[in-house]
Amino acid sequence: MDYPNDQAPGAPVRSGIPEHGRVPKYYAVKAQIAALVDELGEGGPIPTERDLSERYEVARETVRQALRELVLEGRLRRQGRGTVVAGPKLEQPLSLASYTEGVRRQGRTPGRSLVTLDRFPCPDALAAETGLTRGEPVWHLERVLLADDERVGLESTYVSVARLPHLDTDFEPDSSFYGYLGARGIHFGDADERIETVLATPREALLIGTPPALPMLLIHRVSRDTEGRPLERVRSLYRGDRFSFTSHLTHQ
Amino acid sequence: MDYPNDQAPGAPVRSGIPEHGRVPKYYAVKAQIAALVDELGEGGPIPTERDLSERYEVARETVRQALRELVLEGRLRRQGRGTVVAGPKLEQPLSLASYTEGVRRQGRTPGRSLVTLDRFPCPDALAAETGLTRGEPVWHLERVLLADDERVGLESTYVSVARLPHLDTDFEPDSSFYGYLGARGIHFGDADERIETVLATPREALLIGTPPALPMLLIHRVSRDTEGRPLERVRSLYRGDRFSFTSHLTHQ
Repeated sequence: MDYPNDQAPGAPVRSGIPEHGRVPKYYAVKAQIAALVDELGEGGPIPTERDLSERYEVARETVRQALRELVLEGRLRRQGRGTVVAGPKLEQPLSLASYTEGVRRQGRTPGRSLVTLDRFPCPDALAAETGLTRGEPVWHLERVLLADDERVGLESTYVSVARLPHLDTDFEPDSSFYGYLGARGIHFGDADERIETVLATPREALLIGTPPALPMLLIHRVSRDTEGRPLERVRSLYRGDRFSFTSHLTHQ
Repeated sequence: MDYPNDQAPGAPVRSGIPEHGRVPKYYAVKAQIAALVDELGEGGPIPTERDLSERYEVARETVRQALRELVLEGRLRRQGRGTVVAGPKLEQPLSLASYTEGVRRQGRTPGRSLVTLDRFPCPDALAAETGLTRGEPVWHLERVLLADDERVGLESTYVSVARLPHLDTDFEPDSSFYGYLGARGIHFGDADERIETVLATPREALLIGTPPALPMLLIHRVSRDTEGRPLERVRSLYRGDRFSFTSHLTHQ
């Protein structure tokens, strides 16, 4: 019987341990620390590397690798000089609703902090993706996304200047961009999204405050308004250790 | 001007290089190899570690880290003893359609290879998620997913035995499970999905043939039939370097 009665259907089969061959030592330690994580619960402090290496009788480097993976996966997080059990991942709906709405629905306070707002002529690649005209002025709005003051993502929005001529003067950069659009009578019609996993670049890691090369979820969005005209091209990067995305599927 | 005219809107801003502070050496090398990747095109051979370390005047370990990240991200892939430029990621729709359909749409041949098929009493966690009865017999069908004979994922399906009493005798494990359901008059009504990024476990890495700890895309699905009765609970793991998922969003 491979699946004990308490096997969680979302967990790796056989706890990820191969049927044949040897279990990597760091992974055996990782599985033991993971069990400790379940016992301790959110915010619980993890023993030091030295304590763990003594407890499991392995090298410090082995413990370090196990902890590193648990941090990358969002099961643990660094706090000051120690490591504690992390909370569950935030669940954001894949929908036309805004970041603001998704985060609020989970009882968190959304926030944004401006990195850059500038304008430049629409490059070829952007024109091809959106249907904007090559060379027409576009805004690039780049903001760090926050949830309860924690930096969780980085968002780049590209939008036509003709559409929003006063974005640089009358838009409050820590407010909802979709709220701003709605107040100007601009409403979403439809969007194409693509989601993939990438590693954080050094600049992104610096801005979001993540370990470099943390696996991230990257969502590309090209949206149109209710009349089918090009609206925005968004590149949203979310910490892979803090976010998951949900979708409700029905027959069309 | 931060964004040259050929800036791709899906690429990291400023190529991921911080405005201030130093660029990590391995990342500078990675950016140079990435430019080489664009020149060479799919299947193009990458020079050896030794050649690259001489060309860029950096240590072998620095080159190794740059290559490792490019492999994890799916821009390069190992081939025999060398490294070549990888093809684009497969785009799979997030929909009620099957894996089979999604892969075929991209001109690839879908396949599956059976890992395990067994039955056990429905555990608490599975009952809570699906609405099945605790203790009722369930099947667990685990298969490696293939595209053109390349191993790209691993799928665990949990389904009630009462629903499909002869799954162990009349289901061809390398065929479409959704095709099998359809032939028995069972049709999807709706499903809840959740997508996250996780690291491959040693068992998963072995079964899929990936480097250990490769970032994967994990999709959890709980589906119901057209009458709203519980249908399946699926855990689908896809190579993060080979897959992306697409969704078309409209106003409901």
